[in-house]
Amino acid sequence: MLFPTGHRGAATPTPVAPSTGRLRPLGLDQVRITGGPWARRQEVNATATLAHIEQWLEREGWLANFDLAVSGGLAEGRRGREFSDSEVYKLLEAMAWELGRRPDDGLRGRFDAIVARVAAAQEPDGYIGTRFGRPGQEPRYTDLEWGHELYCQGHLFQAAAARARTGGTDDRLVEVARRSAEHVCATFGPDGNQGICGHAEVEVGLAELGRALGEPRYLAQAALFVERRGHGVLADIEFGRSYYQDDVPVRDAEVLHGHAVRANYLAAGAVDVAVETGDTALLDAVAGQWARAQARRTYVTGGQGSHHQDEAFGDDWVLPPDRAYSETCASVGSVMVSWRLLLARGGAEHADAIERALTNVVATSPAHDGRSFFYANTLHQRVPAEHVDTDVVSKRAEASLRAPWFEVSCCPPNVARTFASLAAYVATVDDGGVQLHQYAPAEIRAELPSGEHVGLDVVTDYPADGRVEVRVVAAPAGDWTLTLRVPAWSSSARVRVDDGAVREVGPGLVEVAGPRADGVVVLDLDTAPRFVVPDPHIDAVRGCVAVQRGPEVYCLESVDLAAMGPGSDGGGADGGVDDIVVDASVPPWEVDGAVYVRAGRRGAAGAGDSDDTDVAGWPYATAADLDPAPRPELHDVPLVPYHDWANRGPATMRVWLPTL
Amino acid sequence: MLFPTGHRGAATPTPVAPSTGRLRPLGLDQVRITGGPWARRQEVNATATLAHIEQWLEREGWLANFDLAVSGGLAEGRRGREFSDSEVYKLLEAMAWELGRRPDDGLRGRFDAIVARVAAAQEPDGYIGTRFGRPGQEPRYTDLEWGHELYCQGHLFQAAAARARTGGTDDRLVEVARRSAEHVCATFGPDGNQGICGHAEVEVGLAELGRALGEPRYLAQAALFVERRGHGVLADIEFGRSYYQDDVPVRDAEVLHGHAVRANYLAAGAVDVAVETGDTALLDAVAGQWARAQARRTYVTGGQGSHHQDEAFGDDWVLPPDRAYSETCASVGSVMVSWRLLLARGGAEHADAIERALTNVVATSPAHDGRSFFYANTLHQRVPAEHVDTDVVSKRAEASLRAPWFEVSCCPPNVARTFASLAAYVATVDDGGVQLHQYAPAEIRAELPSGEHVGLDVVTDYPADGRVEVRVVAAPAGDWTLTLRVPAWSSSARVRVDDGAVREVGPGLVEVAGPRADGVVVLDLDTAPRFVVPDPHIDAVRGCVAVQRGPEVYCLESVDLAAMGPGSDGGGADGGVDDIVVDASVPPWEVDGAVYVRAGRRGAAGAGDSDDTDVAGWPYATAADLDPAPRPELHDVPLVPYHDWANRGPATMRVWLPTL
Repeated sequence: MLFPTGHRGAATPTPVAPSTGRLRPLGLDQVRITGGPWARRQEVNATATLAHIEQWLEREGWLANFDLAVSGGLAEGRRGREFSDSEVYKLLEAMAWELGRRPDDGLRGRFDAIVARVAAAQEPDGYIGTRFGRPGQEPRYTDLEWGHELYCQGHLFQAAAARARTGGTDDRLVEVARRSAEHVCATFGPDGNQGICGHAEVEVGLAELGRALGEPRYLAQAALFVERRGHGVLADIEFGRSYYQDDVPVRDAEVLHGHAVRANYLAAGAVDVAVETGDTALLDAVAGQWARAQARRTYVTGGQGSHHQDEAFGDDWVLPPDRAYSETCASVGSVMVSWRLLLARGGAEHADAIERALTNVVATSPAHDGRSFFYANTLHQRVPAEHVDTDVVSKRAEASLRAPWFEVSCCPPNVARTFASLAAYVATVDDGGVQLHQYAPAEIRAELPSGEHVGLDVVTDYPADGRVEVRVVAAPAGDWTLTLRVPAWSSSARVRVDDGAVREVGPGLVEVAGPRADGVVVLDLDTAPRFVVPDPHIDAVRGCVAVQRGPEVYCLESVDLAAMGPGSDGGGADGGVDDIVVDASVPPWEVDGAVYVRAGRRGAAGAGDSDDTDVAGWPYATAADLDPAPRPELHDVPLVPYHDWANRGPATMRVWLPTL
Repeated sequence: MLFPTGHRGAATPTPVAPSTGRLRPLGLDQVRITGGPWARRQEVNATATLAHIEQWLEREGWLANFDLAVSGGLAEGRRGREFSDSEVYKLLEAMAWELGRRPDDGLRGRFDAIVARVAAAQEPDGYIGTRFGRPGQEPRYTDLEWGHELYCQGHLFQAAAARARTGGTDDRLVEVARRSAEHVCATFGPDGNQGICGHAEVEVGLAELGRALGEPRYLAQAALFVERRGHGVLADIEFGRSYYQDDVPVRDAEVLHGHAVRANYLAAGAVDVAVETGDTALLDAVAGQWARAQARRTYVTGGQGSHHQDEAFGDDWVLPPDRAYSETCASVGSVMVSWRLLLARGGAEHADAIERALTNVVATSPAHDGRSFFYANTLHQRVPAEHVDTDVVSKRAEASLRAPWFEVSCCPPNVARTFASLAAYVATVDDGGVQLHQYAPAEIRAELPSGEHVGLDVVTDYPADGRVEVRVVAAPAGDWTLTLRVPAWSSSARVRVDDGAVREVGPGLVEVAGPRADGVVVLDLDTAPRFVVPDPHIDAVRGCVAVQRGPEVYCLESVDLAAMGPGSDGGGADGGVDDIVVDASVPPWEVDGAVYVRAGRRGAAGAGDSDDTDVAGWPYATAADLDPAPRPELHDVPLVPYHDWANRGPATMRVWLPTL
């Protein structure tokens, strides 16, 4: 890997390139993940998922919609939901990052072929979209609430920004996006249509395309969209205007609310606007919303959004593990927000949140083979998932199963674009040196703002092992600082520079004097499995513990209960995980990489009757009438990382384990 | 009150008049509720709610839709959802019962006027409905999944059965229903359209109209509809066919599932069919579904259906108190099912379930003035409800507030028809005597199957007081039996006949030798307030207790926390009920009719941070890092009956109280 030559600024091959901020991102040409789980995810993404998505887009006709726009017949022949164009754009974005990560003529050919079909569908005035405005269709922008026209174009802008930074600004996709953005600015500018899109996304897309192409007008249009929202611009709907964050201006809101994907995309766009305009009040507002959402509206996995009905955040503390919605895309969106706040303000908590969401939600969505996906990521599966037909489109509501494709298939390409750009989230630079935020075997060849170079090779078995060796292969002439994140989950940690003294450090950011070339910094994190307890305000998991090991949340899967005796049939409310209790006085432990707890199967204790042959009871009893529950026989029960669950056939599962 | 003359069978003024079964219902002419809370509810219903509903039906144009059917212009001018006709029919049913309960010329005139408008809209072939089949509308029965055409006609049939039994079979409404039923039988008979309605109701309507009019063909058609369902007759939808119970035949299902109102209406119709056809297997199937739903899918209030998204039952044990949907109509439906099973098979558990659902759900829906209603009945309100504008239609999704009317306004008239017919659920007869199922001050003038008369005056302050005196004003010449239900909630009870010995009795049915005229039976139930604990399978309320007093579930409402110190501002996640813990070692107690618990406000214990000024935390902590929670200062805190909550302005509320 070579050091990049010359400061590229907005052309850095990274998803977010602010012109200012506390930290400066490093592009895919400066950071390469060379091994470990994330490299495997990237490999599966490149070799399986991208083609899988392309095939389904073709099969479902969502790509062919662009051809129909040229040949006519969209009104009769169009397939897919209002937002199906966006899945094509997200695939293009994923391909663009993948091409930046590792050039590939075959992939480049497929990318260009899709771009050609998209480009052909663009109308003379720059508008692009297959759902509105053609003969027999409703006119453009007549359904801002649900039409998703600006949303789709926003994803086009993100894809084009990716391509501009990995393939250059003379790419055809970039030209298509530029014309589309000009159309959007002309149509929705200060004197134009005063509307906004029901699904935020165009804001973040305009901001990034504006940065990539050096077009301040796109950023100004993003700022207009951000400021317009929250004043009841859109129609009231059954879910209320909070669904699309049109109930309160962004700068006045106290917490992320409404539809969780929309909320995060909007927040990301608002940070972009705030950073570029120096709007500290807006940045403070979003940072506060982020903090309260993390503190009160986020699952232990990092997942967000507890409502199925409107795919929305619940009230503070409403985090039921069963029927947790925790949409994959909401976590992709939360990574977008956390990363932007990290660049703007630093802070270990943002990188903690990114690690959590990536490890336990985004990585949970795809199966190991990268060809089926969770849309929702429940924390408690009570009824065994049926075997999924890998050839059938799933409805979103069935999303407690991994499925190859969905009627609303936003998640698969969202995972793909995130995985392809993963290296961008590993490290940053500032005037003083390099900051390491995520740990994976990696090569980092960073150019500091000063123009000097720092080369780091990260050697680690993380997260299986807590030791992270940072080998310095190139260092500036003068002093520099290496900043390491000690994750909040690591209750203790030690750091050593070269042959220096071992230093005990606490969670947060640890700065060490950067060694000379051939020096080494060793960080030891505490990855012993541990019980995690919830804030007592979270009613739904009272009296439960979760198990976490390093950044990975673990779960109990019924297929591992074979040795537990009667009822251990691997499924059903009685036979599966629902009557398991753990002995919290015995901390979880690890043998040969496997994590165990001491647990038993609850007998017919309490008010109810757990015998499946007799359900004639009422499950609420007068407290005084109850006999004490018998202590169950205890076994050593293995857990699995949550992101690995549902890869061994139908099962029930739970993350939160009731205590004895 | 006079004894009825002659056995009337199907003409008994009661909602359900099976031709066979373990118990025989008594009509509104045989039972009158003379005082207590139920009489007050009936009075408000008669004097406020009926007119309130009529005004809103007029105002929203749902009544005028029938006029438009005559004058033309339905296609352009029709207002309301697909099922708006049914609300008119439910109002007519409520009026019919009210006229049976207490004749009133004014009400009779309003009833006849509405019937005239409805009748005018009937088409020559008997079809009636304002949503399909007119010029400019889709053809009839082209959307069985969502069109609700048979559902609406089913409610017409129930209304007509009520009128036939309270006003005679020569009423115009009865004639309209008869022609509509003939149309349905002709259209959907064995050789006709093999479809079913997406919302069950026509089954129970046909069965009852058939009974009331002595038309076995209507019952046969109901049986056809019941048998057809469950074989994938309707289209698959996002919620799956389980939503409308078209996934499994009724006789094969193991538990009530899918949309909770649909599930209960279907079960009620299936019981009617099973009873009339002697289909024991079908009756057993529904009884088993009912039992499992009670044991595993019912809130402590008797409410059913935990999902907002599809208004559906969750899996077994999924009963989160916050965002409990617990639709009012689902409990009306559950009363319908429980009552039919009680008539078919006896059993105190059915009357227990009726009492629970009536007391804690159906009676919770209307405000004290009978002019606003809960659609959903949550068990935990985390954010104070905003003040409801009594002049604005509410969306269903806002249903954590009582509102005067809803876009989907099924609940208000469902409550009205239930309240107007409440006396029908009080008592039954069999060959041996009289069974008392529900306790309220009442006059019962029952004719036994033998033709002999039993007259009972029930004197009680129930549920404020547990003493129920049954004064015998008329008795048969020979031996007879008075059967009394001892509710399951009464852990002890005593019964005494005349001056006989006091007998300790347990929950269930207690039979006593019926006294002669002027004799008395005194039942003493234990209405001391008590803690109720949930079956440990119900994850969402682990570590909590509820308080019940007699049949009434109590709740903590934030307006009662004024004396609790900081944060007691009556609302918000931190200031309201969310951080309250009760000392479960001190049983709840009663002073002057008010119920108290010993409770405190949790400090900044545990992982989280309850200080509103600093939310920058992550709410999950490593167990070993936690300090023990400080014991809060304890206070005597009053609770209120759940059905009374939200009558004192905006508040937060919870039924399940975490223990110290």
